[in-house]
Amino acid sequence: MTFSISSSLSDLLRTAREFIDQEVIPLEEAFLTGTPEDLAPGIAKARAKAEAMGMWAPALPEEVGGAGMSLVEFAHLSEELGRTPLGHYACNAQAPDVGNMELLLGYGSEAQKEQWLEPLVAGQIRSAFSMTEPGHAGSNPTWMSTTAVRDGDEYIINGDKWFSSSADGAAFTVVMAVTNPDAERYRRASMIIVPTENPGFKRVRNTPVMGDVGHGWSSHAEVSFNDCRVPISNRIAGEGEGFVLAQARLGPGRIHHTMRWIGICERAIELMSRHAIDRELAPGRPLATRQVVQHWIADSRAETNAARLLVLDAAHKLETVGNKAARTEISTIKFFVANTLQRVVDRAIQVHGGLGMTDYTPLAFWYRHERAGRIYDGADEVHRNVVARAEFAKYGDVDLRG
Amino acid sequence: MTFSISSSLSDLLRTAREFIDQEVIPLEEAFLTGTPEDLAPGIAKARAKAEAMGMWAPALPEEVGGAGMSLVEFAHLSEELGRTPLGHYACNAQAPDVGNMELLLGYGSEAQKEQWLEPLVAGQIRSAFSMTEPGHAGSNPTWMSTTAVRDGDEYIINGDKWFSSSADGAAFTVVMAVTNPDAERYRRASMIIVPTENPGFKRVRNTPVMGDVGHGWSSHAEVSFNDCRVPISNRIAGEGEGFVLAQARLGPGRIHHTMRWIGICERAIELMSRHAIDRELAPGRPLATRQVVQHWIADSRAETNAARLLVLDAAHKLETVGNKAARTEISTIKFFVANTLQRVVDRAIQVHGGLGMTDYTPLAFWYRHERAGRIYDGADEVHRNVVARAEFAKYGDVDLRG
Amino acid sequence: MTFSISSSLSDLLRTAREFIDQEVIPLEEAFLTGTPEDLAPGIAKARAKAEAMGMWAPALPEEVGGAGMSLVEFAHLSEELGRTPLGHYACNAQAPDVGNMELLLGYGSEAQKEQWLEPLVAGQIRSAFSMTEPGHAGSNPTWMSTTAVRDGDEYIINGDKWFSSSADGAAFTVVMAVTNPDAERYRRASMIIVPTENPGFKRVRNTPVMGDVGHGWSSHAEVSFNDCRVPISNRIAGEGEGFVLAQARLGPGRIHHTMRWIGICERAIELMSRHAIDRELAPGRPLATRQVVQHWIADSRAETNAARLLVLDAAHKLETVGNKAARTEISTIKFFVANTLQRVVDRAIQVHGGLGMTDYTPLAFWYRHERAGRIYDGADEVHRNVVARAEFAKYGDVDLRG
Amino acid sequence: MTFSISSSLSDLLRTAREFIDQEVIPLEEAFLTGTPEDLAPGIAKARAKAEAMGMWAPALPEEVGGAGMSLVEFAHLSEELGRTPLGHYACNAQAPDVGNMELLLGYGSEAQKEQWLEPLVAGQIRSAFSMTEPGHAGSNPTWMSTTAVRDGDEYIINGDKWFSSSADGAAFTVVMAVTNPDAERYRRASMIIVPTENPGFKRVRNTPVMGDVGHGWSSHAEVSFNDCRVPISNRIAGEGEGFVLAQARLGPGRIHHTMRWIGICERAIELMSRHAIDRELAPGRPLATRQVVQHWIADSRAETNAARLLVLDAAHKLETVGNKAARTEISTIKFFVANTLQRVVDRAIQVHGGLGMTDYTPLAFWYRHERAGRIYDGADEVHRNVVARAEFAKYGDVDLRG
Repeated sequence: MTFSISSSLSDLLRTAREFIDQEVIPLEEAFLTGTPEDLAPGIAKARAKAEAMGMWAPALPEEVGGAGMSLVEFAHLSEELGRTPLGHYACNAQAPDVGNMELLLGYGSEAQKEQWLEPLVAGQIRSAFSMTEPGHAGSNPTWMSTTAVRDGDEYIINGDKWFSSSADGAAFTVVMAVTNPDAERYRRASMIIVPTENPGFKRVRNTPVMGDVGHGWSSHAEVSFNDCRVPISNRIAGEGEGFVLAQARLGPGRIHHTMRWIGICERAIELMSRHAIDRELAPGRPLATRQVVQHWIADSRAETNAARLLVLDAAHKLETVGNKAARTEISTIKFFVANTLQRVVDRAIQVHGGLGMTDYTPLAFWYRHERAGRIYDGADEVHRNVVARAEFAKYGDVDLRG
Repeated sequence: MTFSISSSLSDLLRTAREFIDQEVIPLEEAFLTGTPEDLAPGIAKARAKAEAMGMWAPALPEEVGGAGMSLVEFAHLSEELGRTPLGHYACNAQAPDVGNMELLLGYGSEAQKEQWLEPLVAGQIRSAFSMTEPGHAGSNPTWMSTTAVRDGDEYIINGDKWFSSSADGAAFTVVMAVTNPDAERYRRASMIIVPTENPGFKRVRNTPVMGDVGHGWSSHAEVSFNDCRVPISNRIAGEGEGFVLAQARLGPGRIHHTMRWIGICERAIELMSRHAIDRELAPGRPLATRQVVQHWIADSRAETNAARLLVLDAAHKLETVGNKAARTEISTIKFFVANTLQRVVDRAIQVHGGLGMTDYTPLAFWYRHERAGRIYDGADEVHRNVVARAEFAKYGDVDLRG
Repeated sequence: MTFSISSSLSDLLRTAREFIDQEVIPLEEAFLTGTPEDLAPGIAKARAKAEAMGMWAPALPEEVGGAGMSLVEFAHLSEELGRTPLGHYACNAQAPDVGNMELLLGYGSEAQKEQWLEPLVAGQIRSAFSMTEPGHAGSNPTWMSTTAVRDGDEYIINGDKWFSSSADGAAFTVVMAVTNPDAERYRRASMIIVPTENPGFKRVRNTPVMGDVGHGWSSHAEVSFNDCRVPISNRIAGEGEGFVLAQARLGPGRIHHTMRWIGICERAIELMSRHAIDRELAPGRPLATRQVVQHWIADSRAETNAARLLVLDAAHKLETVGNKAARTEISTIKFFVANTLQRVVDRAIQVHGGLGMTDYTPLAFWYRHERAGRIYDGADEVHRNVVARAEFAKYGDVDLRG
Repeated sequence: MTFSISSSLSDLLRTAREFIDQEVIPLEEAFLTGTPEDLAPGIAKARAKAEAMGMWAPALPEEVGGAGMSLVEFAHLSEELGRTPLGHYACNAQAPDVGNMELLLGYGSEAQKEQWLEPLVAGQIRSAFSMTEPGHAGSNPTWMSTTAVRDGDEYIINGDKWFSSSADGAAFTVVMAVTNPDAERYRRASMIIVPTENPGFKRVRNTPVMGDVGHGWSSHAEVSFNDCRVPISNRIAGEGEGFVLAQARLGPGRIHHTMRWIGICERAIELMSRHAIDRELAPGRPLATRQVVQHWIADSRAETNAARLLVLDAAHKLETVGNKAARTEISTIKFFVANTLQRVVDRAIQVHGGLGMTDYTPLAFWYRHERAGRIYDGADEVHRNVVARAEFAKYGDVDLRG
């Protein structure tokens, strides 16, 4: 690897891998085929162990209770955690909490940090994020109906959101609402903290996603705000700065996510390689002897390695020149890795045959839920347009509205 | 259409389409997001209506209670029914019952017909089919561990099966078991009827498939046979004829299935076209204006039409020259249509964005469960090999075992 | 085949196949690796034989010297001829002559027919077609710079064209020129016959296409019209009817072309199957034993069969409901078959290894020149838009200009 | 870029880019559409300039007349040179000469270096490489018919080779011939220098490749050895070491080649971006406004960046752990980049429409000749098998011969 890893990081990654293999992967069965109650004791134990091992809230500074890793360090760790659907939760690094932590850390007031960030990092509470609306295309985030109108020292929030990830059981959500409808397009909205116990907030239902209504942190909810009053001090950063925050939140988050996907690819390659070796087509003739299986594995290896390098390169750029200058790279990895993931998982399922359709491996879970990787946080199409615009800009000004 | 449709068939298809649109599609919500109890009254009503309209058990002859359609007629109907996940069940044409009905009709004894076929056609009972074993690759159907040993006038059956479709609630299953272990490879197994109330039969559990343990006819079970004794008269056709029956069963079944998939493609195209028209990216600017959406729809249309013609051509060949002579065509449509389906549904989900991930449309259901189309009943790879062998055979003898 | 073939057509196709195999394929070596002089005697002999066998100018009526085949009959024949790059020329059915013949037959004046159509059908002269301009995108055919201004009973034509197929050695070209610049968009241009001996016409050069400037009928030329005067009676049909003629010309032409492509696919499958059988990787272990080769052949067979059915279905529709009503189908087959062709030829080259790169098989010729199938006569993108528009139209009016 | 580039390399690359843009790209027209004579004066001038600028024989040490670049430095330069088909020749870095130079430098005797290496580096002579045989599959390089039999202090060589790159006009070729037929499989062959003036050597013809017999260094020849006697001292390294040399030759060569392909991708992206901006579909509405064009450019950018990182990572590994340990990476980049190249060039042609089919851009040249990237030096299939084997080896021993 030319993206040099210090020996201490290298040690940490080995430790993380062992932790995942020994403590977390054995919990997959309960997660994939059992009830939340089946999973509870095991995951609690794994979380305690992760904390004891110094892998808790890895991207947060030590002074607020995290492990103090750099972006690139957490990127590498995220790959190891990504090898199982439970890895990030085991380390309190799951979305949307990790994004909310980074948001509060960077832009929250001292009071907000004390009230919300600390228990969040400590794993005492969970949080949600409420941006997407059922009535508007996610690909145009500036067009939304939820409003927050000032009334004295309060905002009165009204509107409906969906895909409020993990709202089920969350202590608060961060909602994006229009505060300045007449402002310039990217200055209209603000981010506001809404405790879920607020009487104006309602979790209407968990959305059934790919056959699954989910539970707790592993769910998506439809929520509504009905004359929901919160103090103005619940706003994060300045009024109208919602999009600035959303952008700031996206860069590092995309590094985490795409490295998590690389971890999924790695596990899928491992599972299909092992199954191909173990499963016999006839006595003494394993599936691994089939040329198409060999080629699927080879293509998956090549594409996964290429994807990882692309993410690490983007992370490096993000760290050295900043979120804005790395915008094209951040868009590139989103669609490139999401599509790589879909192909690799699909091949792994095909190698597994009927078993691949079942929940006896995590492949079917990823096949279902990670299909969203090409949709959430900007669909493939949105990110491809960003990249194309940057390419055209090398050769002159061109109006692409066509 | 050059595959001519009589005006009576044409009328029937229009009627079927209206029935599906008005009576069955409204039940999707209960099926996709509700409980079996939510669905029960509506589906019962729809089934009664289907029977009254002459679309009940469409492929079975009228004398046993079916609608008496020819293979090509049922093929066309199957497309209409396929537009919703509930269509085939509404007409008592769901797998594996329809396959078992055809099997009993063609090869069952009079006693078997009376005891099992009649109530099956009448919709009074359901059935299962138990062939695949967890310990053996499905792509080599001649290699299985389940045995049926003669003891007087009984078989004693032992073994484990999975993907016993619809065993949950079934009155009987048809099990494939080795009766003649020393016979030539394709003469080793027989098909035997096993009532599920037999004490030697156990439904161990429903297999969680893509996050869903299913229920009733919409489930897959793991079953075991432990010294399960059944009369020899429960065997369908002669001893050692299991593969002959399996082959006979496959031809028409594949026509039904692939036409059902064409129906799914049609519905997916309809859903994505409508959503593209309705969903606005900005006021007055629908998603339909995006060129990539246009191209996905165009490719889906082209591929679906091509796939339908290929199936109708195979059906015509099957009817005119028989199952065996049409073997290559039957393999061709299996992998060609299954892959078309996967691409079309994937595009439709992408057009729907977040909504496509939810169970508020049937797309996510098909995305999950029809992934099996490339695996069950012979994986893509098996069928491609059949087609390649036929191609090589045009130019000479070649040993492909390489 | 469900697209029924009469026994006389079936006989003709068998005869055509033998003719191609025995008389034309042996000429490929001279065509692909020799000089025009090397090819001349052989191709002259083959053309004489084709005429004697009743396969001359197959789509033209017998009364003007053709073989009088219907659209569907010629479609089937076109597949047989397409198996070699010389097949259509051997039967005087090569583009653009066949299109010009159909144009003159359907819309030419009696004088035009006598002067141009008769010698064209007789094979005494060749012709060109001049539509595309280097300065304008081919995907917007209504935007062109070449003008034909009336001056008494003459047109004065000025402008530059390229991709004037076969202008090298042609007796005349049919040029598309703006005659009514102020008319409604699709009524601006007319088609006019220009003899190449006209002093105002100049063939500037043959365009090097994929490394090849070509020669005679197998070439593309850049031509210019400089105050080129022709009698008004050289106009085909009415003034401003250029687009109507272009559309009329396209429908049947696309059937011929796409069936020619099917013929290429068939030959490519044959070549790769034979090579896979003959070429050994090690003694006694032919390339045919490789699973990926088997799968390429299987996919090629499936896609080619599907493509053929799609074309025959479009031809049937064109014959029964007309050019306009079949417009969507005509667009569908253009991009569907062109892409099928590209994939099949690419796989055949890969199977041939280094030999596939050489001109010792026709594969490399097709790889180069048929790449144009996705560009000429409307690029893939244009045709996909046509198909998408038709799909949207099923659900309502939608403005797609976005 | 995280693969750090020194500021001196960065300066060199900028200089190289300007050199290519100003001195070499203007020669493309003569190369692509003219005669060798049209090209001669310009390319001679460019070569002189390259030498004066310190970019001559870049990978060779300064003491033998090269520019003394490291593998990674030459890799980056190779990308810049690759932007035009003439770039490598302009710097005396063209295949197969550069490979022969590296071979002689690393393994040649002092006499061989003096006689052949020095004039080769100086650009006074050219050379060829003769390995592939028309009668054997290139994917099994150990199976060949050409023999070199000792007779006193001479070898008598007999056999036929093809794809002897650049034999037309070469001073010598390096031939691979069986010297020890009874040795272990990988110890059977040796590499021997054969001057082309040797009466036993004959260049039979240049092979027509994709419509082009080529000329001089830009050609592939069929050659034959008929009782061709050369001194034993013409053998490079030890007897039976042919495969060891071939492997040694391949590693660095694949880095050069794949970086050349990256250069082609970059130029293709530039050409399609510029054309999309310049070409109007209608007044004021450039092709760049089309979403599919934007997406092709975005995908090309993402895939090219990923491919470059993969190559640089492989180069880094090759330099730090050696040829053998980097074998899997060397195989990975071969098929990954070759396929990326094919897709990117294909998209660029589609964006150019008819112009893309002509030789007025280098795209059509690359489309034709770089198709070989998936075939020469080990087909995709061979390299995928290497990668799959390495993956399986992580989990145990498995016999893949199945």
